[in-house]
Amino acid sequence: MIKAYAAHEPGGQLQPFEYDPGTLGDEEVEIKVEYCGICHSDLSMLDNEWGMTDYPFVPGHEVVGTIAALGDKVTTLNLGQRVGLGWFSGSCMTCEWCMSGNHNLCSNAEGTIVSRHGGFADKVRADYSWVVPLPDGINPATAGPLFCGGITVFNPIVQFDIKPSDRVGVIGIGGLGHIALGFLQAWGCEITAFSSSPDKEAEARELGATHFINSGDVNALESVQNSFDFILATANADLDWNAYIAALRPKGRLHFVGVIPNPLSTPIFPLILGQKSISASPVGSPATISQMINFAARQGVEPITETFSFEQVNEAMEKLRHGKPRYRLVLKHS
Amino acid sequence: MIKAYAAHEPGGQLQPFEYDPGTLGDEEVEIKVEYCGICHSDLSMLDNEWGMTDYPFVPGHEVVGTIAALGDKVTTLNLGQRVGLGWFSGSCMTCEWCMSGNHNLCSNAEGTIVSRHGGFADKVRADYSWVVPLPDGINPATAGPLFCGGITVFNPIVQFDIKPSDRVGVIGIGGLGHIALGFLQAWGCEITAFSSSPDKEAEARELGATHFINSGDVNALESVQNSFDFILATANADLDWNAYIAALRPKGRLHFVGVIPNPLSTPIFPLILGQKSISASPVGSPATISQMINFAARQGVEPITETFSFEQVNEAMEKLRHGKPRYRLVLKHS
Repeated sequence: MIKAYAAHEPGGQLQPFEYDPGTLGDEEVEIKVEYCGICHSDLSMLDNEWGMTDYPFVPGHEVVGTIAALGDKVTTLNLGQRVGLGWFSGSCMTCEWCMSGNHNLCSNAEGTIVSRHGGFADKVRADYSWVVPLPDGINPATAGPLFCGGITVFNPIVQFDIKPSDRVGVIGIGGLGHIALGFLQAWGCEITAFSSSPDKEAEARELGATHFINSGDVNALESVQNSFDFILATANADLDWNAYIAALRPKGRLHFVGVIPNPLSTPIFPLILGQKSISASPVGSPATISQMINFAARQGVEPITETFSFEQVNEAMEKLRHGKPRYRLVLKHS
Repeated sequence: MIKAYAAHEPGGQLQPFEYDPGTLGDEEVEIKVEYCGICHSDLSMLDNEWGMTDYPFVPGHEVVGTIAALGDKVTTLNLGQRVGLGWFSGSCMTCEWCMSGNHNLCSNAEGTIVSRHGGFADKVRADYSWVVPLPDGINPATAGPLFCGGITVFNPIVQFDIKPSDRVGVIGIGGLGHIALGFLQAWGCEITAFSSSPDKEAEARELGATHFINSGDVNALESVQNSFDFILATANADLDWNAYIAALRPKGRLHFVGVIPNPLSTPIFPLILGQKSISASPVGSPATISQMINFAARQGVEPITETFSFEQVNEAMEKLRHGKPRYRLVLKHS
């Protein structure tokens, strides 16, 4: 039996919940959970915001733990090895996207908390392919958020070939944005942080930003027209996107990793004149997760976390719902 | 004196007009005009649609002719050599964009018909850098439209690294779209033409399309979801862009070279799921124009044109304003 925390209805409290995971599949592994980060999508799923939640619902898709059991055909992992698991727990392994290393774009990829039970538990299972070893030098207590929040901001750096000589902007200094600052600084970029919270300036600079702009200041936004090769939008808010498009240099890209409430609306002419792009992306593939976690270990990129025990899970969820975590919450087995 | 055709007010008739071009600059060349294509932007400028037209206004920026005079410092061209000239006639040659071969993105690039007199004339002048030699094998009578319409659709193929194995769509089979079909076929791509004119199907297939979709047919559009790596939008119309975004495969790009009347509006979530991009671009640099014209010569890509004598210039402009040229109009000195 696996001992988990589950909600039984939309918005419900998480309660102790045991379930029988059945026989371990040939290509599955069972992870003994040490830590599990809390991502905003755990809350969205708990509330059934996207209409795809099954109850009882066990959140948790930023897992760090050790291999407790291996399926018969798993050859790439060892018992006791420390690993991480993120948003996806499996993919078809046969489509062109899986076959080309883009498992994150497989149309049959399985979410760790979609139609299965997640990492708010003592154990969790996943297909071996999505379970990524933690290298030496990674702090397991803070690594969980890298497996969803971290890979979400690291993935576009790789996918869109961001260069150390690029001038980049990061919109939103929160759960995603603060990790983006760390990765982009380690990547060698010149970084401008955009935040509606002027009190985050000092911390943003510590985290890697060279410049800080209060995104509520229209004049400040105008002053950086034609400045950026790449702007990463991590905020889940409707902003003046055309001002950010104007802030791009020719060939620049405005890239979204956060879901904004309303459609983006933009005239085409400014894009034509500057050969500009607008794009968005999900989490990365297992290969990119592995690339990220090794880069993070070598460069010392570490999420800033606040730790709760699993017994405090409802308190932690409330903090995420109503408060402003600085910057990621992690549950720990006591 | 240069003998040209000029309008003296917005929407005015083109009338014979002579002007003294002054001393030829050190880095300028004078082209004896043989042919000049008519582009829709000649009409927009004539009507002062963009508020930047000076009168008397001489249209014409799809010039083919021979070098009639060379500035003292011009070393790359020869008297009598056949050349082409497009939307731009000069750029600063010192900014980072000019220095990196992206002269088309120079913020001081000079339009051939913006604050200067264009190619509806017996002669026209331009900076040597934007004057591109015609290779053997290019038909000068039809090459004019390649220098604006052609480069507009060829440029994104190069800029966004379109591959022969890509599945591409072309929206709008008109002045730009019919040339796009030719280039993309020569590039080796599998092409679907989207047009609201079902009567263009046979010709679109002859021009290079493997598939044809009536863009007014909602079911037909739905049937190609998740199909394209690259969709080139050449139509100046507001279409159901979200249906075309759905028609992109993961990592796909919807690219605009036509100015659509209203802002594009799109939710971000479909872009996130498929790591999709939306972008747009202007004409290409001199290096890309040269690449295009040599590729067109080698592959036999040729615009379909209808020829008028310069004396018929007003008749030709009326045809562009009210009719549907199939597909580009070219003026010829008789």
